[in-house]
Amino acid sequence: MGKDFLYNEIAGNIASKIKSGVLKAGERLPSVRGLSREHGISINTAKRIFIELEAQSLIESKPQSGYFVSSLNYLKLPLPEASRPLPVANNTEPNELISIVYANMGRNDLTQFSLGVPSGNLLPLAKLKKEIVLATRELKEGGTEYEPLQGNVKLRRMVSARSLAWKGNLKESDLITTNGCMNALALVLMALTKRGDTIALESPCYSGILQLAVSLGLNVLEIATHPVTGIDIDALKKLLPKINVCLLVPNFNTPLGYCMPDENKREIVALLSKHNIPLIEDDTYGDIHFGSERPKCCKSFDTDGNVLWCGSVSKTLAPGYRVGWVAPGKYKDQVLKLKLVHCLSSTSVIHEAVGNFLMAGRYENHLRHFRKTLQENYQHYALAIADHFPQGTKISQPQGGLALWVEFPKEIDTTELYNYTIKKHISIAPGRMFTLQNQFQNCMRLCIGLPWADDLRLKLKQLGNLAKMIG
Amino acid sequence: MGKDFLYNEIAGNIASKIKSGVLKAGERLPSVRGLSREHGISINTAKRIFIELEAQSLIESKPQSGYFVSSLNYLKLPLPEASRPLPVANNTEPNELISIVYANMGRNDLTQFSLGVPSGNLLPLAKLKKEIVLATRELKEGGTEYEPLQGNVKLRRMVSARSLAWKGNLKESDLITTNGCMNALALVLMALTKRGDTIALESPCYSGILQLAVSLGLNVLEIATHPVTGIDIDALKKLLPKINVCLLVPNFNTPLGYCMPDENKREIVALLSKHNIPLIEDDTYGDIHFGSERPKCCKSFDTDGNVLWCGSVSKTLAPGYRVGWVAPGKYKDQVLKLKLVHCLSSTSVIHEAVGNFLMAGRYENHLRHFRKTLQENYQHYALAIADHFPQGTKISQPQGGLALWVEFPKEIDTTELYNYTIKKHISIAPGRMFTLQNQFQNCMRLCIGLPWADDLRLKLKQLGNLAKMIG
Repeated sequence: MGKDFLYNEIAGNIASKIKSGVLKAGERLPSVRGLSREHGISINTAKRIFIELEAQSLIESKPQSGYFVSSLNYLKLPLPEASRPLPVANNTEPNELISIVYANMGRNDLTQFSLGVPSGNLLPLAKLKKEIVLATRELKEGGTEYEPLQGNVKLRRMVSARSLAWKGNLKESDLITTNGCMNALALVLMALTKRGDTIALESPCYSGILQLAVSLGLNVLEIATHPVTGIDIDALKKLLPKINVCLLVPNFNTPLGYCMPDENKREIVALLSKHNIPLIEDDTYGDIHFGSERPKCCKSFDTDGNVLWCGSVSKTLAPGYRVGWVAPGKYKDQVLKLKLVHCLSSTSVIHEAVGNFLMAGRYENHLRHFRKTLQENYQHYALAIADHFPQGTKISQPQGGLALWVEFPKEIDTTELYNYTIKKHISIAPGRMFTLQNQFQNCMRLCIGLPWADDLRLKLKQLGNLAKMIG
Repeated sequence: MGKDFLYNEIAGNIASKIKSGVLKAGERLPSVRGLSREHGISINTAKRIFIELEAQSLIESKPQSGYFVSSLNYLKLPLPEASRPLPVANNTEPNELISIVYANMGRNDLTQFSLGVPSGNLLPLAKLKKEIVLATRELKEGGTEYEPLQGNVKLRRMVSARSLAWKGNLKESDLITTNGCMNALALVLMALTKRGDTIALESPCYSGILQLAVSLGLNVLEIATHPVTGIDIDALKKLLPKINVCLLVPNFNTPLGYCMPDENKREIVALLSKHNIPLIEDDTYGDIHFGSERPKCCKSFDTDGNVLWCGSVSKTLAPGYRVGWVAPGKYKDQVLKLKLVHCLSSTSVIHEAVGNFLMAGRYENHLRHFRKTLQENYQHYALAIADHFPQGTKISQPQGGLALWVEFPKEIDTTELYNYTIKKHISIAPGRMFTLQNQFQNCMRLCIGLPWADDLRLKLKQLGNLAKMIG
């Protein structure tokens, strides 16, 4: 534990010096031996730290010369500003915009930067098919029967086994499977809230979560959020008396892609527990970390069952399978009862297939490649953006996940931009979709889960040119 | 049209004379030629009428002698009484009982008379598996993608095509697919109601619907229901001012299995439309008709989109597939929006597989066998019940569906009986599960969707003996 702690501290320290500009692009770092001496750590630990920082593209090694702060162009782009939503609920849904963007999502003739899911090219399609075929053969009655109410046993067993990696230490019996993560969020919100209650969310926030909250009659309080560390705890504290429930995506959320630091997770969990406000944690992106370690969750710090941890394979394996889950802590009975009346069962065959896929160790293998691809994509995108987007453009530095958040200079309205891009067969997700307040008009989300190719670089260039044109 | 009308009228006329006892068991019926002459119909039509009545087990043919009113024992068992629920909402859920019964439903060591679904032995498992394998091959990205929001196109096309048979005349665009029928009912109830609203339901009523209504904070008004014609329209009329929404299962509902006459359907649709009360119609059992004709639905008489017609393949093909749908009439936009935030998509592979299964004409073929088996099962059950159940036992005369409703003499409490039967590895669904009022304690529902065998006869005998013991 002590060693791991030191390792994380030193690596984190260097990373933040690079991100904040204390260490400049091109600057030489101490040698492995030097770092080891300086902190009293082993040579191996020092090496691991450099490898980790290199994996994050923060540093690069030059043969015979040692490690240097990465000089990749994209690091020169500044971060978007922390959001500053109004401290009151003000639910104005951008319905028309969302309808238009969603309607275009099924089109094959578009470059779908607006997607919230990975392209099929990045998914292990053949192996998944094989598992489905096997499941129809091996399941009793070919999977035509209902599942047990808590859901597929293999899937729950594997999700619980995998929770050891982030110190969730869930048991099979702690988990309830659902039809994807949105279904999990819907069930837990129905279990915990009534119309007129107030929910605290990140800002910007995934539009599906905003729509769900509004459809359940909740008042939405958007909380100020920093693009690297996430929700502003002080802002949250001030609004606590108004809040009935809090829903966060602390690991690689869409659209910002930050990873909330462990100490923040710990503090938020304690704070909400103390005030008896349930914390719903959407950890759908937790497995898509660009760094070498799977980040902890808020659930890792949950001592009294107040955190309802939700996840799925919709962003890593198959959106269309509808396989998700929730560990609802002390709210298990209520959630189970709602699952019974709203869903009864999930699709037996598909949940069994995913359970088997996980048991065969295929998931870890896929994730390794998948994460690497996404991280490389992020770098490709960032370079193209640095080259082709208007002066003054800022972008997020996602530490995982599928999204890149772009902040244009104020005068560029992305809803207007959308009208131009779509004519060029390019679809984006305008920033206005990610809030119920009139904000983020100069922002947009880009999906980095598309297979990289020269054509994609060209499309980003076109996008940049259109933005310059209307700017 | 005129011919069909005459055919239905004559057949219905004879059927009701038999059921009401005007024509006695063993009595000879006119010859084919005689019937043809009497009503001025063709020989073929007369023959069809006898075949239809024989299919309903109301008459039997004796070689060289003609047709006679069936002397099967089960016809001697009287019908259960029409229900008389309190005219006020009085939501007392039988939670403990339901938990116990549900917990035992997954056990393989029980004869599952308590099931609400058919046994896998009666389902076309091999053909379904084949369709799943094909769907994983043929769907874009192997079915890992989300579906269009309204759902699988083939499935919607086929459900719309099949709606011609019952004069629903639905278009593909009228339909939204769902994760089974319960999911459809949950979505439409969420779209139409708010906490504190009052819903009118049949009495007895499927426990899942009762639980769903309670979980949404609705007051449940159970309406007096006749075991052959369904909900009592006069009782409904009296309570109309209190009602915000009405949910009915007019075709072969569980547990009673009646088929509401067309004139009643028409009257209820007009009545509710006039008072602007939405009618949710659960038609999950509509395809399991024992008579030769697919009955009409309330939706068949809907002129202004006030009927939300729901269905699924959960009772005919595969409960565990979660494939259902709704034609929400004028409420389509609200329902679609809720589907987006609660479900996003159904399981693409499985919905495609079922769509293909229907397109290949396999569904009709399966249904023909399936219906025949269920009807024969009903007769087997009825005979065994007549032989072995306590004197004074009444049973429903289902005209389709999967359920048989048994009314014991008053002194037999089926919740108590359950404790005895479960020790003998027999599971039943006690009547108390089908109401929120303290009623039907002397009733139970039996599933007729189990493969008939001598062992099943023995289990029914055991069940009868246990009932006699505690009576």
